[in-house]
Amino acid sequence: MAANTFGERFRVTTAGVSHGQGYLCIIDGCPAGLPLSVEDLLPDLARRRPGQSKLTTQRDEADLPEIWSGVFDGKTDGTPIGIIFRNQDQRSGDYSENIEKYRPGHADFTFDAKFGFRDYRGGGRSSARETICRVAAGAIAKKLLARLGVKILGYTKQIGSISAKIDNPTQVTFEQIEATPVRCPDPEAAQKMIDLIDSVRKDRNSIGGICELVATGVPAGWGEPVFDKLKADLAKALVSLPAVTGFEYGDGFAVATKLGSENNDPFIPKGDRIGTESNHHGGMLGGISSGEPIILRVAIKPTSSIPRPQKTVTREGQPTELLTKGRHDPCLLPRFIPMGEAMVALTLIDHYLRHNQSRLAME
Amino acid sequence: MAANTFGERFRVTTAGVSHGQGYLCIIDGCPAGLPLSVEDLLPDLARRRPGQSKLTTQRDEADLPEIWSGVFDGKTDGTPIGIIFRNQDQRSGDYSENIEKYRPGHADFTFDAKFGFRDYRGGGRSSARETICRVAAGAIAKKLLARLGVKILGYTKQIGSISAKIDNPTQVTFEQIEATPVRCPDPEAAQKMIDLIDSVRKDRNSIGGICELVATGVPAGWGEPVFDKLKADLAKALVSLPAVTGFEYGDGFAVATKLGSENNDPFIPKGDRIGTESNHHGGMLGGISSGEPIILRVAIKPTSSIPRPQKTVTREGQPTELLTKGRHDPCLLPRFIPMGEAMVALTLIDHYLRHNQSRLAME
Amino acid sequence: MAANTFGERFRVTTAGVSHGQGYLCIIDGCPAGLPLSVEDLLPDLARRRPGQSKLTTQRDEADLPEIWSGVFDGKTDGTPIGIIFRNQDQRSGDYSENIEKYRPGHADFTFDAKFGFRDYRGGGRSSARETICRVAAGAIAKKLLARLGVKILGYTKQIGSISAKIDNPTQVTFEQIEATPVRCPDPEAAQKMIDLIDSVRKDRNSIGGICELVATGVPAGWGEPVFDKLKADLAKALVSLPAVTGFEYGDGFAVATKLGSENNDPFIPKGDRIGTESNHHGGMLGGISSGEPIILRVAIKPTSSIPRPQKTVTREGQPTELLTKGRHDPCLLPRFIPMGEAMVALTLIDHYLRHNQSRLAME
Amino acid sequence: MAANTFGERFRVTTAGVSHGQGYLCIIDGCPAGLPLSVEDLLPDLARRRPGQSKLTTQRDEADLPEIWSGVFDGKTDGTPIGIIFRNQDQRSGDYSENIEKYRPGHADFTFDAKFGFRDYRGGGRSSARETICRVAAGAIAKKLLARLGVKILGYTKQIGSISAKIDNPTQVTFEQIEATPVRCPDPEAAQKMIDLIDSVRKDRNSIGGICELVATGVPAGWGEPVFDKLKADLAKALVSLPAVTGFEYGDGFAVATKLGSENNDPFIPKGDRIGTESNHHGGMLGGISSGEPIILRVAIKPTSSIPRPQKTVTREGQPTELLTKGRHDPCLLPRFIPMGEAMVALTLIDHYLRHNQSRLAME
Repeated sequence: MAANTFGERFRVTTAGVSHGQGYLCIIDGCPAGLPLSVEDLLPDLARRRPGQSKLTTQRDEADLPEIWSGVFDGKTDGTPIGIIFRNQDQRSGDYSENIEKYRPGHADFTFDAKFGFRDYRGGGRSSARETICRVAAGAIAKKLLARLGVKILGYTKQIGSISAKIDNPTQVTFEQIEATPVRCPDPEAAQKMIDLIDSVRKDRNSIGGICELVATGVPAGWGEPVFDKLKADLAKALVSLPAVTGFEYGDGFAVATKLGSENNDPFIPKGDRIGTESNHHGGMLGGISSGEPIILRVAIKPTSSIPRPQKTVTREGQPTELLTKGRHDPCLLPRFIPMGEAMVALTLIDHYLRHNQSRLAME
Repeated sequence: MAANTFGERFRVTTAGVSHGQGYLCIIDGCPAGLPLSVEDLLPDLARRRPGQSKLTTQRDEADLPEIWSGVFDGKTDGTPIGIIFRNQDQRSGDYSENIEKYRPGHADFTFDAKFGFRDYRGGGRSSARETICRVAAGAIAKKLLARLGVKILGYTKQIGSISAKIDNPTQVTFEQIEATPVRCPDPEAAQKMIDLIDSVRKDRNSIGGICELVATGVPAGWGEPVFDKLKADLAKALVSLPAVTGFEYGDGFAVATKLGSENNDPFIPKGDRIGTESNHHGGMLGGISSGEPIILRVAIKPTSSIPRPQKTVTREGQPTELLTKGRHDPCLLPRFIPMGEAMVALTLIDHYLRHNQSRLAME
Repeated sequence: MAANTFGERFRVTTAGVSHGQGYLCIIDGCPAGLPLSVEDLLPDLARRRPGQSKLTTQRDEADLPEIWSGVFDGKTDGTPIGIIFRNQDQRSGDYSENIEKYRPGHADFTFDAKFGFRDYRGGGRSSARETICRVAAGAIAKKLLARLGVKILGYTKQIGSISAKIDNPTQVTFEQIEATPVRCPDPEAAQKMIDLIDSVRKDRNSIGGICELVATGVPAGWGEPVFDKLKADLAKALVSLPAVTGFEYGDGFAVATKLGSENNDPFIPKGDRIGTESNHHGGMLGGISSGEPIILRVAIKPTSSIPRPQKTVTREGQPTELLTKGRHDPCLLPRFIPMGEAMVALTLIDHYLRHNQSRLAME
Repeated sequence: MAANTFGERFRVTTAGVSHGQGYLCIIDGCPAGLPLSVEDLLPDLARRRPGQSKLTTQRDEADLPEIWSGVFDGKTDGTPIGIIFRNQDQRSGDYSENIEKYRPGHADFTFDAKFGFRDYRGGGRSSARETICRVAAGAIAKKLLARLGVKILGYTKQIGSISAKIDNPTQVTFEQIEATPVRCPDPEAAQKMIDLIDSVRKDRNSIGGICELVATGVPAGWGEPVFDKLKADLAKALVSLPAVTGFEYGDGFAVATKLGSENNDPFIPKGDRIGTESNHHGGMLGGISSGEPIILRVAIKPTSSIPRPQKTVTREGQPTELLTKGRHDPCLLPRFIPMGEAMVALTLIDHYLRHNQSRLAME
């Protein structure tokens, strides 16, 4: 609700810019009693980290979180969790051209338009380094969700026109995803994607893609009609990430060509619960979880920073040419996966905490 | 931020169910001094109204708003605008089967799962009749935006596999849109869509589609990094509408196959402002408006209520068959247009009010 | 958080002015399953109603609520509770002088200063008739709290220099309070207060007083450090009521002359819980309930409307004289009691719902 | 709205405990363009600092803020201001008895009751060291307010039964206040207060008092009816501070004995604006600023930590005796002044930003 806060019950507030001293992250609303240490945050931070492979940027960010508060005797204590990240790799020199020339696809121009001036070192506040806070907070959310039996996995579904063949999204494993640096669980497609990214990189270009995210174990009932539907909050959560240009769940945009008789999922008994025969609805009906797996996809645009000359203007509006220096991901998908998972986790834990009070249980 | 409130600065709170006494809508945060009367709300409410043509449901809802407060001497007075709508057409008999059988594609089951029971008369709170409040509030937002030079138009882009041919979304006129009951500005496609909907209706089925929405006149600078990006809040606003299963802006999901060199829009001077040569970015960069037209699309699933037997279960989980009675839209697109426009308008006016305080202007 | 919304989890949003068509009240966040009907709201509304005795204004307001939504089959159903009140007694003629002359002690001038103009019929939005919504919502909160064993009572503690002698605030009963129209449980003081109000009324004047409020049964643990302390939210809740000019809890302002050794309440075992020997802390430590009774007091200024000539200025700033017509309470205390109780109830239920998620209970 | 966030438009979120690594403070909503450096924060932080005189605790806290983000080229840049404070003086040994014994007057017991356990080193999250963040944020708010002509001063009005004689609160100067370590602008009373505190300290006790706060230069119109009245938000802001047990503005609790004819302030012309002859209303009418000085008072209890044996219980409820060690303020008033000023400043700047959008100014 504030620009730099996400969530209503499990609230993440962040500050920091790519080339300042570091990032601050405050998580308010985490229940007391959750075992937590820095180690819990490291795996997803490592997956988000630049320099994991030649597919991703070679910048070196230590990305080591320090938990300053909110954890006592190894457990969350109900007070706000304060986490800081110190910035290290701040090659300001690489970005000097930024002062005068607007980088196409970036937020340089719009930040200037909004605030009158901007931190021109790297992306400033618009840098994707900001997602380091989201991924750390998301790791805590995931740990809470795991206790509830909820598991979240994301993977690369498509890069360029190479699409992964996934028979059943709910059967994809973490190991399959992490088996290749491109985080695509279909090995054949993964190799083609890797080759494509490599060729795009050599061509000083970048390429977009689609990430699929699956949440299993979410019981029926999460989501708040009518504005804070689960689908709506997931849409906001994911589209708030840098480079995301689209969101869909279930059959998504494919519903345009569907008949009601095809798209409606018949209800059937599933053991002791009610489920649906098919899952065109992607696990949400009326914006409330149905108990079926939540399946969604987001579109990620090609990295805006490409090391080739681009047409642009100066701050004064004079046409010029820009040649981006520095190291950049030729494809954002591999590093996007933990970011997407984090936003799904943050949305789900928030809705769990909200749903938990939907019914009277006060005797 | 609360389940039934939308917006941070221009806040819309609603209550009401389809078969209760009526709906309440409170708008908090509208600046004082805007000329306003019931007449301002009627045009969009009429566009949302059932029974406009054989393409839409024949239910008759008077949909007449009463403004109870917030307007004095013909102008908004800075106090909350209270609007009520009385319900009239409440043929409860049509819905009796709802008590026991879960309608596929609807929120019956998930409401029960969430709250333990539900208002089984019509959709209760999940009924799309709730959007009557959104459309009324949206009409006020549109009137405010018009003073700022911002104009919002939506139209049917696709139904089934029939796609409208729109050379330039920003050139589409209200008159072109309203020329046909299907609200598609391409007359040729419109006729095909009408025929398709008619045939689907006769076949006791329904069909999905895609709505495109265009906002022109939004200056550069609206949108709040990092969570409340304009793109993120538009995504939430639109996906919170019933039946919406996807959101994209600019090139949307098509970015997956794009190279950075194709997707980046070069900056160019445009008279006294800076603009972009192309608009793959759909008017938003870094989640902040760029001054270029905002263009987005949403996917709308086929109406879940179809007048043919469907497989489902009872509340107790017993397999059964359901035959929906009552009148329903064979395609939601025509009536969706004003709803989509309303949500864009509510999001934009909220962000205008937020942006307005981004810079110091305090001398 | 918005101007016309109170609460975070149990959210009350209101609209309406004293001389418009009526009031709207939307309560969002009430758990499903609470038996509720209009009858539950009537007793407190009757206590708030004008015209109960010659001590209060003789205006006749029917104050009959209509619950339009949020209750199904006699129980709250988890959707927002929509309540409307129609205005009836709208003698606009009584208030015609208001247009030009600012009433001392009222919000006429400050509303004009804020919004540029104002609804000059009665107090408009600043009229205490707005509390009708608070009292209705408070009655629902009280009903929820009663299930938790929490009971809230308010009474007149002081009027002018007549102070009630209350040996133990927690022993005061509803019957003692309601025994006299002045709602003071000390019969002797009550009679003196009645005589004082009567004499003040005859003298065309008004008189202030102090209300004491007691909440028993609140367990230890409600209240959120560091900003949303229970004491802080109670302060806001009560000071937001018209005419309230002060708030204190426990020893309140008397702490100024206290030594730490006098003011600290020693902890002692109390059966199976830990309590304190004395209750200087008014039931809150560190802003969190201690399990001891919550005791607080608010100061209420004399009614600003007095039927005698008063010096003032016109809208243009010209000195003039004003003679208020209409009927007004010579003392606000009797009708304030249910308003004060309502705000305590709304604050407590909100904090109950918040506290309820302070600890992990997720297995 | 969240436990650890204050404000709606100028939002301060904090984390940190007295004996952890340090504090994080994120300020979201500060307009871009305000010149700001660490030096702006130091004066008020120095006034809040322990060890200023023998009247205050001798603990040594460096209290040096680091601004990690939100300031670029010496000016706020519209992105969140991130400030950290490292903790230094962490004599955990001093607090070892805290683990088992509940300190009377402190939040040890209520934190345990709320969260199940607590950080027993010092006050943990309930430590008044948390106000370091409030004072830093308040200094920024003050700087913004100064540009609007608003000035805030607080001073010690009463300690024990020694009351300062202040003829005109609006004439008190910063220099008069800072002339003595007790921050009382009446030199005679100041000396008596110093002597009293000294004697109380020697007697291993503590003493309470009253702080008066004055805001001048606030124009008419700030404050949002009906819940977010300026008086209500000031009440919450100040009562949220540790040790505050009461709040009043204008005549406060003295209204109880006032007649309407005495309490109403006649409106009069004051140059080119409308003002009031007297200021019983403390600068707020209907919860909106009137243009007259805002005057309020808060009651502050005697320090709970007193170095003498006190009766209490263990966590298990066993009666025991506690002897507090460590250094503590014998009277909180001197160090409270900057905290009180900060909360007034944060409330006022928030309401300025809100009021600023009350009227249409959109052409």
